[in-house]
Amino acid sequence: MGIVSTHPEIDTLHGSLCPRFHRAIELIGRRWTGAIIRVLLPGPRRFNELLGAIPGISDRLLTERLRELDAAGIVRREVRDEPTARVVYELTPSGRELQDPLDAVGRWAERWIGAGEAGAR
Amino acid sequence: MGIVSTHPEIDTLHGSLCPRFHRAIELIGRRWTGAIIRVLLPGPRRFNELLGAIPGISDRLLTERLRELDAAGIVRREVRDEPTARVVYELTPSGRELQDPLDAVGRWAERWIGAGEAGAR
Repeated sequence: MGIVSTHPEIDTLHGSLCPRFHRAIELIGRRWTGAIIRVLLPGPRRFNELLGAIPGISDRLLTERLRELDAAGIVRREVRDEPTARVVYELTPSGRELQDPLDAVGRWAERWIGAGEAGAR
Repeated sequence: MGIVSTHPEIDTLHGSLCPRFHRAIELIGRRWTGAIIRVLLPGPRRFNELLGAIPGISDRLLTERLRELDAAGIVRREVRDEPTARVVYELTPSGRELQDPLDAVGRWAERWIGAGEAGAR
């Protein structure tokens, strides 16, 4: 690690920010997670609405991702009684604040990822 | 897909942005990629400098990630003759513009990811 001390600007990466940053970027970078959060930004959605809004995601994978996001405190599962009981998924306050990072990624992608590179169309 | 048409705000996700966004978020969300880009933001680095600056990354994995980033046009490998030949890695213009999205993720992580949740310490 001798090299690190000659680059103080890198040293800040070793502080408390680094593992948190790792955790955050890997959490939102997981396949479909960004899409799920984006679809939930305007408001709560039912499972089938999410399934219909995210092209290509499977029932099983959506369930898995929603559980992960629930465990990470980003999405909350709620049972409502209106008029019959139904389950909705909604973002928590921390989930809603992911709008900024995701928008920044979206702007970068719009500018730099060519249509040809985009892959899964 | 009948549900989608009743949510115009979701429909925009189906346009050209969606696959690009997917590609971008999965690219920068890959393990270590965000850290590599952050370390390169201040300027070019040699392989061993990168290796020393990113705690926990292996030689093999750093090589692999640098190749992926090169293929994606985010990092460029350059041979310099000063005073002896040496290889450095540097961000391309698109790579440098990842600063905004990564900073936004960093701010979110600082605010919402608890030290206990950060995992790999």
